[in-house]
Amino acid sequence: MAKSKYEYVKQFEKDDSLIPNTWLVIRIDGRSFHKFSERHQFEKPNDRRALDLMNKCAETVMSEIHDIILAYGQSDEFSFVLKKECDLYCRREAKILSTIVSLFTSNYVFLWKTYFTDKELQYPPSFDGRVVQYPSDNNLRDYLSWRQADCHINNLYNTCFWALVHSGETETEAENTLRGTLSSDKNELLHSSFNINYNNIPEIYRKGSVLIKQEIDFKTFNLKGIEVVRKKKVVTILHVDIIQNKFWKEHPELNLINFDS
Amino acid sequence: MAKSKYEYVKQFEKDDSLIPNTWLVIRIDGRSFHKFSERHQFEKPNDRRALDLMNKCAETVMSEIHDIILAYGQSDEFSFVLKKECDLYCRREAKILSTIVSLFTSNYVFLWKTYFTDKELQYPPSFDGRVVQYPSDNNLRDYLSWRQADCHINNLYNTCFWALVHSGETETEAENTLRGTLSSDKNELLHSSFNINYNNIPEIYRKGSVLIKQEIDFKTFNLKGIEVVRKKKVVTILHVDIIQNKFWKEHPELNLINFDS
Amino acid sequence: MAKSKYEYVKQFEKDDSLIPNTWLVIRIDGRSFHKFSERHQFEKPNDRRALDLMNKCAETVMSEIHDIILAYGQSDEFSFVLKKECDLYCRREAKILSTIVSLFTSNYVFLWKTYFTDKELQYPPSFDGRVVQYPSDNNLRDYLSWRQADCHINNLYNTCFWALVHSGETETEAENTLRGTLSSDKNELLHSSFNINYNNIPEIYRKGSVLIKQEIDFKTFNLKGIEVVRKKKVVTILHVDIIQNKFWKEHPELNLINFDS
Amino acid sequence: MAKSKYEYVKQFEKDDSLIPNTWLVIRIDGRSFHKFSERHQFEKPNDRRALDLMNKCAETVMSEIHDIILAYGQSDEFSFVLKKECDLYCRREAKILSTIVSLFTSNYVFLWKTYFTDKELQYPPSFDGRVVQYPSDNNLRDYLSWRQADCHINNLYNTCFWALVHSGETETEAENTLRGTLSSDKNELLHSSFNINYNNIPEIYRKGSVLIKQEIDFKTFNLKGIEVVRKKKVVTILHVDIIQNKFWKEHPELNLINFDS
Repeated sequence: MAKSKYEYVKQFEKDDSLIPNTWLVIRIDGRSFHKFSERHQFEKPNDRRALDLMNKCAETVMSEIHDIILAYGQSDEFSFVLKKECDLYCRREAKILSTIVSLFTSNYVFLWKTYFTDKELQYPPSFDGRVVQYPSDNNLRDYLSWRQADCHINNLYNTCFWALVHSGETETEAENTLRGTLSSDKNELLHSSFNINYNNIPEIYRKGSVLIKQEIDFKTFNLKGIEVVRKKKVVTILHVDIIQNKFWKEHPELNLINFDS
Repeated sequence: MAKSKYEYVKQFEKDDSLIPNTWLVIRIDGRSFHKFSERHQFEKPNDRRALDLMNKCAETVMSEIHDIILAYGQSDEFSFVLKKECDLYCRREAKILSTIVSLFTSNYVFLWKTYFTDKELQYPPSFDGRVVQYPSDNNLRDYLSWRQADCHINNLYNTCFWALVHSGETETEAENTLRGTLSSDKNELLHSSFNINYNNIPEIYRKGSVLIKQEIDFKTFNLKGIEVVRKKKVVTILHVDIIQNKFWKEHPELNLINFDS
Repeated sequence: MAKSKYEYVKQFEKDDSLIPNTWLVIRIDGRSFHKFSERHQFEKPNDRRALDLMNKCAETVMSEIHDIILAYGQSDEFSFVLKKECDLYCRREAKILSTIVSLFTSNYVFLWKTYFTDKELQYPPSFDGRVVQYPSDNNLRDYLSWRQADCHINNLYNTCFWALVHSGETETEAENTLRGTLSSDKNELLHSSFNINYNNIPEIYRKGSVLIKQEIDFKTFNLKGIEVVRKKKVVTILHVDIIQNKFWKEHPELNLINFDS
Repeated sequence: MAKSKYEYVKQFEKDDSLIPNTWLVIRIDGRSFHKFSERHQFEKPNDRRALDLMNKCAETVMSEIHDIILAYGQSDEFSFVLKKECDLYCRREAKILSTIVSLFTSNYVFLWKTYFTDKELQYPPSFDGRVVQYPSDNNLRDYLSWRQADCHINNLYNTCFWALVHSGETETEAENTLRGTLSSDKNELLHSSFNINYNNIPEIYRKGSVLIKQEIDFKTFNLKGIEVVRKKKVVTILHVDIIQNKFWKEHPELNLINFDS
């Protein structure tokens, strides 16, 4: 049973190191979550417990992987941003990707019962993922803007769609009603037919969730029993616009103020 | 909120399709499972429930991903073999890897309580993974031989190590006792000091687990109420040698009889 | 001028090793050779000196790069086949590709005057190239068949096209005459209008050029002045069918007899 | 001879597009130029004709490939910098690399006789090459600094080495004399033993060659026969420091002023 005779097969493992000094984005997506959400009777258009669970999983991933400086989530997807200087696992793509996807998935199943207290998990859900490299700060900002714009577009559509369905239309009818409509048409439809002001819908649904790490002060007692103030990093969850410069100016520690746009 | 303005960022996603007509092996490994096994008081050198759980997860992955023709597991690792012609997700590496890692992880957490009925899962475990391409049947056979030889070497060592520890040595002493010993020395040690014949140890520990799909007959009733025999594919778990040709000759459907070795 | 301060930039060079045990094909193509052939008044449809020059360059490349076991050329393209076990430059893709393209180009310019004795080279021509990995012998055979079938199709077309043009049609008229015609139509056209039996056209034009290495005996004198027979490898240029099995059976040293097709 | 039956082999060509928005550097190196320079009796430590030929080849490559904004050469190597936005051949790595290597090589052979008027080219030289991606302007500046620092270190060493050899030392003795010496030692040796002030050596040898494109005015006559001033881009060859900021400030069109260093 000479192992050494077979060890040459390790040569077939290729070096998949990502190039240094680029932003790394790992985006994960729920696999067949349409079916999963139906089977678990998620509330439509948005199920707050499902989003809170997603956010909690992302928070845990962020706490464990120190190089993640920001995460953005919406619906059944989450993007994790690793800083440019990141040398996690020597930047090996498969290792980084598989670790993050696995950690997220594991937490999702593990924490399910905390968020869905009255609903048993019916079967194990799964996520797929990918890694993308962004060379410049602008490219990264544009990536995040792309995801948040996508969140907005989908949420506006889904809000209308489910309002129509809840009011009695079939799903096919609702699709037909919405075909070809502009954003302004949808806002108007919500307002006139359902008395909904889209801008009053909670920001978690309209903006998605932005997770960053912030240093906070906390009080503790030192060895002499005297109260002192220490600092620690905690993950904060925000539901704010990240397309405009405002957010980035308020968080200079992210070092992503885009002067060009 | 023009999404289209930002969509150019999709161009940074690279095409990571694996070349056609190669065997694909996805190997996943438990992350920090030394700590995980201690925290959950796994029996040493082998915890049968933990192995059964691993095998069940692999079985589920195999049932879901049709292109997997064989899986091999030992300890906290599992290798999945996708057939050469596999066109799953157009052979995109990240998609295949992340899906399999996620499915495996999800099942591990979901099924934990079935196998560890009296032990709560303390925290969510995770796995990492990689993809390796093997061009020839011989290369694949050698890969599998490498993993099974590794299983043997580790299990022989661990069996000795824990016998020594259970008999009173500290872990450091046991390491020293075993340093520099050959396989024959270890077999002799087990025999003379602990009255253990290594070859009598269950094959699941010595050989690991081999999962294949087999077509079986099953009886059912047709529409006219007459009993008929139908066929279906089921995953079978074996604990056998896969280094020699015997196994491969017995499973011609795998088409991996290595005439050269 | 501390060089070391800047040496970190070497980390950006990625490992581009090709996977082991696959056939490597490097195919090079003349860049803008339509213009180049017009500027140098190549004879149409085929210029024998140009093909002989291409073949001589390929022969030189083959002699210098020992791992090349076969080359196939037609028109302004050449494919070089490196054996599966090849470890040239640790199988680094860019190194292999650039070396072969550069060697070929260099010889083309250097040897030009030997083949075009009465025609000055007007400007330096160039070639581009690519590397493709083929896992199985069948894949490689099919690659070579693809190139030879391409040679046939192009040569039949060009033979008709230039016969029409030489007989007085404009290039546009010739294109129109040939639009939509089948192989049989073209053979018939050559026969009836130009009294050309396509099968009598020299094989170098119809089949392209196949370069292999063959061991030959040669007589020399040993140190004692006695005539002895030694062996050496020389590149041989053939113009034969490589789609059928005949060629491969006649050259068992290539180890590419395809029993499946 | 159905070509289509074999066309599936094209699927084995992988997409090797480089990620967008990174600086691309293609560095080519003479293969076995030690032997080549001896065979062609290059003057030592520097042969001006050889460097001028290298520069002329680089100039031609730059003129043909519009996306190259700068090239840097020393000894038998040349680096070509393609601008970040470059979309040449859809950024396909093999295509870009092979084209530049081939163009350079072709020109080298073609132009040899212009620079070595009294020396026949003995055999065709070749070059290999690689592509490196640099995400940030600083990375690119550091790459170029690395090559220029390398030029300086090599030239100082070679100047000493050949001064010693020309004064009567064997090559081995010269190596021993220089072993372990610092830059300051070498400067002192040149000064005291050979009355050479290193700083007076021509900058082409000490700094290498920097090729950029500059817009110049030129006078011509318009259709009415009136003299007018037009603009065109020409390649300019400089022998200047590119490590400090001075050069980059003088060439704001390169947009590479590195404020950080």
